[in-house]
Amino acid sequence: MKSSRDDQDGTTVLRLPTDVRVVNVGLSILGEGVRAQGVPAVDVEWRIPAGGREDLVDALVRLYGTATERIDEANREVARRLDEGAPVLVSVGAAIDEVPGVDARTILHPGPPLPWEQFCDPLRRSVHAAVMAEGWASSPEEAESLVAGGEVELDSANQHRTVVPMATALGPSAPVSVVENPQGGNRAYSAINQGSGKTPWFGVETPEAVERLIFLREAVGPVLRDTLRSSGPIDLFSLVAQGLQMGDDAHMRVQATTNLFLRHILPDLVGSGHPDLVEVARFLSFDHLFFLNLAMAAAKALIDWAADVPGSSVVVGMARNGTTFGIRLAGTGDRWFLAPAPPVGDALYHGGFASEHAAPDIGDSAVLELVGLGGAAAAASPAVAAFVGGTMADAVSVTEAFDRICVARSGRFKLPFLDYRGSPMGVDVRRVVELEATPSINTGILHASAGTGQVGAGVARAPLGCFQEALLGLNASLG
Amino acid sequence: MKSSRDDQDGTTVLRLPTDVRVVNVGLSILGEGVRAQGVPAVDVEWRIPAGGREDLVDALVRLYGTATERIDEANREVARRLDEGAPVLVSVGAAIDEVPGVDARTILHPGPPLPWEQFCDPLRRSVHAAVMAEGWASSPEEAESLVAGGEVELDSANQHRTVVPMATALGPSAPVSVVENPQGGNRAYSAINQGSGKTPWFGVETPEAVERLIFLREAVGPVLRDTLRSSGPIDLFSLVAQGLQMGDDAHMRVQATTNLFLRHILPDLVGSGHPDLVEVARFLSFDHLFFLNLAMAAAKALIDWAADVPGSSVVVGMARNGTTFGIRLAGTGDRWFLAPAPPVGDALYHGGFASEHAAPDIGDSAVLELVGLGGAAAAASPAVAAFVGGTMADAVSVTEAFDRICVARSGRFKLPFLDYRGSPMGVDVRRVVELEATPSINTGILHASAGTGQVGAGVARAPLGCFQEALLGLNASLG
Repeated sequence: MKSSRDDQDGTTVLRLPTDVRVVNVGLSILGEGVRAQGVPAVDVEWRIPAGGREDLVDALVRLYGTATERIDEANREVARRLDEGAPVLVSVGAAIDEVPGVDARTILHPGPPLPWEQFCDPLRRSVHAAVMAEGWASSPEEAESLVAGGEVELDSANQHRTVVPMATALGPSAPVSVVENPQGGNRAYSAINQGSGKTPWFGVETPEAVERLIFLREAVGPVLRDTLRSSGPIDLFSLVAQGLQMGDDAHMRVQATTNLFLRHILPDLVGSGHPDLVEVARFLSFDHLFFLNLAMAAAKALIDWAADVPGSSVVVGMARNGTTFGIRLAGTGDRWFLAPAPPVGDALYHGGFASEHAAPDIGDSAVLELVGLGGAAAAASPAVAAFVGGTMADAVSVTEAFDRICVARSGRFKLPFLDYRGSPMGVDVRRVVELEATPSINTGILHASAGTGQVGAGVARAPLGCFQEALLGLNASLG
Repeated sequence: MKSSRDDQDGTTVLRLPTDVRVVNVGLSILGEGVRAQGVPAVDVEWRIPAGGREDLVDALVRLYGTATERIDEANREVARRLDEGAPVLVSVGAAIDEVPGVDARTILHPGPPLPWEQFCDPLRRSVHAAVMAEGWASSPEEAESLVAGGEVELDSANQHRTVVPMATALGPSAPVSVVENPQGGNRAYSAINQGSGKTPWFGVETPEAVERLIFLREAVGPVLRDTLRSSGPIDLFSLVAQGLQMGDDAHMRVQATTNLFLRHILPDLVGSGHPDLVEVARFLSFDHLFFLNLAMAAAKALIDWAADVPGSSVVVGMARNGTTFGIRLAGTGDRWFLAPAPPVGDALYHGGFASEHAAPDIGDSAVLELVGLGGAAAAASPAVAAFVGGTMADAVSVTEAFDRICVARSGRFKLPFLDYRGSPMGVDVRRVVELEATPSINTGILHASAGTGQVGAGVARAPLGCFQEALLGLNASLG
């Protein structure tokens, strides 16, 4: 760009030549000044890093400065683990037999640890249902007084290498999927997906909902156990990688992967010969979300392995209990950084429901967003596109938002709409805080108070506060 | 565009102003003249209609002229039928019991009718295998002499409301899927897909291949029959519509729809209790092309209904026997218009094979390209994209080529990559001949002579000659 001076009235004016195109990377007022002279100017979206908060800026200066080499190396190792681990489903068994630290009175819940008084309505009801399915109480009221009386040991599933979606509460006799990560030598666990309709994971505590938990324990669990004994281990992320070519984001939409899984186990399922086999087949036939919990367990196995890398700025835990939203960093150990659970936005509600009926964001499924799935893989999914604006271009923009806050791209989760580029993975707390851009999470929405189950689905935006605290925590931990 | 005269040397010159952008819709030499003056010009791709052949141009002038109102009205009715018919799978039974006109010595083959001497190698072998599976011969040589001696009645499956993919030969005892089109009150039939590996539909006649046909008859057919008795009718195109949101074009790639179908029938399949159920489940688990034949039968049911509309210029039959390629028009009744079977281009070959090993294009599956599937729905399928250039943009261009030769867009087959636009359907012979742009067909490739089965997959381009003949036939039939 050439300029010319104009000194006629004694002042110095910068004149633009006529044939110029301007990109303004400063404050928008600079672009306005150019446009006022009739010259087109494009403003680059620009903001002060970390909103200009001094403690955060100081931490970023160090974490991107003197500490960056060490952090980047740790992050590369985290990314390697997230990409190279190949978790396999090895068996199904009772939580008390499989999950470390679960005893005869333990009930695991989603999200960070939380005192019972603070449990939200849907999760409270789900715990009631689990207590009734265990046979400890025969009504929600009895269950409530049992728990309030301290006779049930509540704990965060995440603390036990376990993940549970939405408002799932997991009793000791409930069946869990056992997922092994051979590369890391670690295991992770998840509840069996409870299916659609009036079920506890959607915050329902009716007799019908309790019956579902008993059916899972007495029929679905044993049939899957026998099926897996016959099929051998199943590579879960190999199925997910195919599912992403078939419209799944593997969080809000897991139908393709569910179907691939069912076709894979079909001969062993049929051969298992359990007396309840037809009823189990009917359940599996109706449950298009069945694979969700398996994908979550696989993600948990990888993220727990990644959590062992010291000094990394990558988020290795992201979970919600409907009251608090918590994250963990590889570089800060087991500590949870908390914020209030956010509402779910960009929502589509079932008929008759609206945002005033919606419980806050809940569940451990956000672990998927940490490994290149869910929101990070939105560009793979026409079904997700419907929730984020309606076109594939809208879904692509969700994935691209993840790209800006992630340290790597997946080598196995490919996005056809982006010419088979890998989905972004490894959320870097530095980038989140610098850009004030938190991950978006594709999720369901439960009724806030009526105990009637799911009322819609949408996109939750992770709260910034816990990332800011985590950044400061990381900075402090580096000494 | 403004112009200026320049009379200085006595001649009149048309000068272009400096700030001009030119789109040239004439011969490319006009664009070159503009570019020679230093002005940018874009040439519109332009060609003489119908290659300038006078008989074709005369026919087009009439079919787009005085006859157009009548034809367009007929085509609207054809499009309505293709869009509104909802074919359902109602049962599975032996061809001799279900298919009209099949008797105890009939073997049906793909494509237009053909004398035995002209059968290509893979189809010849497939007929041998079918003859052996019927128990009429115990070796390919015995089968050959039986057929050559006229003791087997060969007929085109299409003539019996039936469609068979690739080199499938269908004996009287072989099981067929029975598909009903309630809106049209007609039925169509297809063979049961033979699965992958060394099988007759890929031109293999070994004992293993014959065994597959016997397994289909003795086990797969009966299990599916019992399953359907229990499940009731299944809306096939409702599954296909979902499959298109999951990466299927429903021709080259039918995996998502196959999986949806299997999940749908799962409880009834499990409940059928047949002694061979586990083996059948293993077969279904491995056969990712299983739904192909069902999609074809559904397409055949609609296209046969559409074929009853007089005076339409829409193609209602497109089939290949490996020797000839034939089409039929609604406006010209049962008559086949033929051309030599084309090679399959844009091919990816299995290791060790190349175009010199490839048999010409074969099978009835091109019926899918007439109802908005296959090449018409290429834009739905990342898997198909791999065959047509590698990116989704390449797949989109295949769909857009169909758009230029079709009369309508599907109301149920939606393309996410094109913002959920319906896939093009109803190939208009007028447009094909005018633009010299024939449909492309996503298909497999068989070995030309070795009887070793499938060697690759690719895209066949329908030959122009039969469309030109059909156009002249339509013109003549309008009197």
